Amino acid sequence: MSFFSLFQRGKKVEKRIYLDHAAATPLLPEVVKVMRDIDSKTYGNPSAIHQEGVLSRNLIEKARTDIAKVLEIPREGVIFTSGGTESNNLAIMGYVARLLQEGLVYTDMEIISTAIEHPATRNTLVHLKQLGVIVHEVAVDGVGRIDQVALRNLVSAKTVLITVAYVNSEIGTIEEVGAIGRIVTAARANSAPNVLFHVDAAQAPLWLSCVMPHLKIDMLSLDAGKCGGPKAMGVLAIRKGVSIAPVAFGGAQERGLRPGTESVSLIVGGVTAIIAAQTGWRTRAVAVQKIRDAALATIAEQLPQAIVNGAVGDARVANNINISIPGIDSEFAVVVLDTKGIAASTKSACSSAGSSGSIVVKAVSGDDARAQSTIRLTLGARTTLADVTKAIEILSEHVAKQRF
Amino acid sequence: MSFFSLFQRGKKVEKRIYLDHAAATPLLPEVVKVMRDIDSKTYGNPSAIHQEGVLSRNLIEKARTDIAKVLEIPREGVIFTSGGTESNNLAIMGYVARLLQEGLVYTDMEIISTAIEHPATRNTLVHLKQLGVIVHEVAVDGVGRIDQVALRNLVSAKTVLITVAYVNSEIGTIEEVGAIGRIVTAARANSAPNVLFHVDAAQAPLWLSCVMPHLKIDMLSLDAGKCGGPKAMGVLAIRKGVSIAPVAFGGAQERGLRPGTESVSLIVGGVTAIIAAQTGWRTRAVAVQKIRDAALATIAEQLPQAIVNGAVGDARVANNINISIPGIDSEFAVVVLDTKGIAASTKSACSSAGSSGSIVVKAVSGDDARAQSTIRLTLGARTTLADVTKAIEILSEHVAKQRF
Repeated sequence: MSFFSLFQRGKKVEKRIYLDHAAATPLLPEVVKVMRDIDSKTYGNPSAIHQEGVLSRNLIEKARTDIAKVLEIPREGVIFTSGGTESNNLAIMGYVARLLQEGLVYTDMEIISTAIEHPATRNTLVHLKQLGVIVHEVAVDGVGRIDQVALRNLVSAKTVLITVAYVNSEIGTIEEVGAIGRIVTAARANSAPNVLFHVDAAQAPLWLSCVMPHLKIDMLSLDAGKCGGPKAMGVLAIRKGVSIAPVAFGGAQERGLRPGTESVSLIVGGVTAIIAAQTGWRTRAVAVQKIRDAALATIAEQLPQAIVNGAVGDARVANNINISIPGIDSEFAVVVLDTKGIAASTKSACSSAGSSGSIVVKAVSGDDARAQSTIRLTLGARTTLADVTKAIEILSEHVAKQRF
Repeated sequence: MSFFSLFQRGKKVEKRIYLDHAAATPLLPEVVKVMRDIDSKTYGNPSAIHQEGVLSRNLIEKARTDIAKVLEIPREGVIFTSGGTESNNLAIMGYVARLLQEGLVYTDMEIISTAIEHPATRNTLVHLKQLGVIVHEVAVDGVGRIDQVALRNLVSAKTVLITVAYVNSEIGTIEEVGAIGRIVTAARANSAPNVLFHVDAAQAPLWLSCVMPHLKIDMLSLDAGKCGGPKAMGVLAIRKGVSIAPVAFGGAQERGLRPGTESVSLIVGGVTAIIAAQTGWRTRAVAVQKIRDAALATIAEQLPQAIVNGAVGDARVANNINISIPGIDSEFAVVVLDTKGIAASTKSACSSAGSSGSIVVKAVSGDDARAQSTIRLTLGARTTLADVTKAIEILSEHVAKQRF
């Protein structure tokens, strides 16, 4: 069986409606173009001193400058990684490694996060906890927003890091990162000299500003594959004055912070996508939010038993719909949608394997039935209201047939 | 300045002769084709349960089966990574992490390697040494071959890992991995129950068999970007019965050993390249070795002061020429070659930044002058004798003009 025969399996005549943009996005045409052009024109190792290497190096360094400008940090603060997961790992473990070098021990360090983070953050913190780091989960409300008073009270002289997602990948709630950034900045000036603010912005670039100084973000994780770029390409952006240590070892690439031969096409393709996402994010968000809210109104009408998970209005990312239909087998519902041409999901793809319900929805609602019946529809810039309406109709028909 | 204007800088009218295949290889046409096809046909997250996700998953799992067959290990032993550097990090640190879970402490563990490893191995071991692991460098001879008697004597009950490169990326010496594998296997059956054998085979697939059972290899690192595949794609292959722990944390991808959304096109493209490399490696090696040996004869004639670094004949990888011309400024020589259309290098690209000479050549020769005057020409399957001869002529002319 060749790779191409596998495509046939996936081939369907009808038009598919793809509503899983939080899990993966199609490549933008301009990203495809620039990656193909690069792959056809240069393959030199960027660390080599010959012409082929210098061309590769120049392309990478131009990409670094371009993304740094958009994020409003110095170009030295841009570290290219293999994706959002690696960016989160490097931010968190790299800063801990740096503090170890400075003489702190694990048990001297406290990290504050939430119970609703993506596995890339949550499981990194589980690992650090096993090493002795004290990990606090700050309370979140019923839609997943951090209790800022609780956060202020949790910060101590030992607090070294506060790490939260800008947008929750499952329920779409936008965390008030600007306000949290101000709390962290104030804490650093007073009681907690080592504290930094790390934000996982994997779900943000298409819908929200990622300008770091405005939001008082010290370290920012991005993932090109979630905003029209290639998978396996991410960025960890760190502001001036922040220092981390490497967590992988090898060559001196990325200022010694991330070893391995760089892929020029991934880097330039990924940066092209992130910049395209940040260009006009507000217009895109306004348009898609209208579709989302119209769809939520349709859900309220056609599926009155559905409970919306996460925030509403501007506190919710423009492209996310997440509902629970208590009692429903939501994986089966997603499969039914799939057979009728709709790609949807139950929760974060990275959380999918072998889990029994949404950890996020359980944490915000305390309700097992809600956590086990989540359906997530995440829109793209080109999704139409007709697309989402069709998905809701099919889901409603399916729900109507169920006995529960 | 657009990305495309950068291409103009790199544009030259004359045909380039690329002799830096150890640093990076051009993409094979079939790799370009399969990657483009995949990128145009699927972008689903492989962890998603809808059709788009299932297609991605099937493509990845087919690639896993295909590469496993070539390496002759079970498919579960294939872990896709972001490149050879990450593969080495995961093999070494992942096995150490596994042993920590089993209750060993760092100071209980001894690792044996050499002074001539790639930075991805060397610097990972430096890190582990700082944590308390005892790292031994087994003696190598004047061409970089491990002293097997010394190796046997170094193995103790505490030895947990022996890690060496199959082919030295700078001087091209082929390590006798089969013989070392037998030593490790015997040690494991006797005095050193935890010992494993890890081989960095980044430079091997085009020129040598990578069948793991024959060579008694427990863990094998591969890098697609060094054998006609995409950069930022690697494999860590582990035989049945070997268990490692993750060193990065997130989703459950790659059996929980390597988190992050997979790039289908990188994985399939990389596997396509590695399999193409292993198909007909012997014929390819015989042909290129003839060109290499003819070129070495020309060097002996035209550059009598040149000293060949590394082994000769079958003990040297088919495509590697590495010479020292004591007294020469080898970086300048590479720049001169570059201006005359030849891409060459002084040493490993990953070792290039800010170093004063070849650590590898220093280690095997003890000779600073030799270490500081290395020039490496690494051939590809399509390199002709005329190409290499032209490079040697230009180098000879340059050397003749120098005063030293």
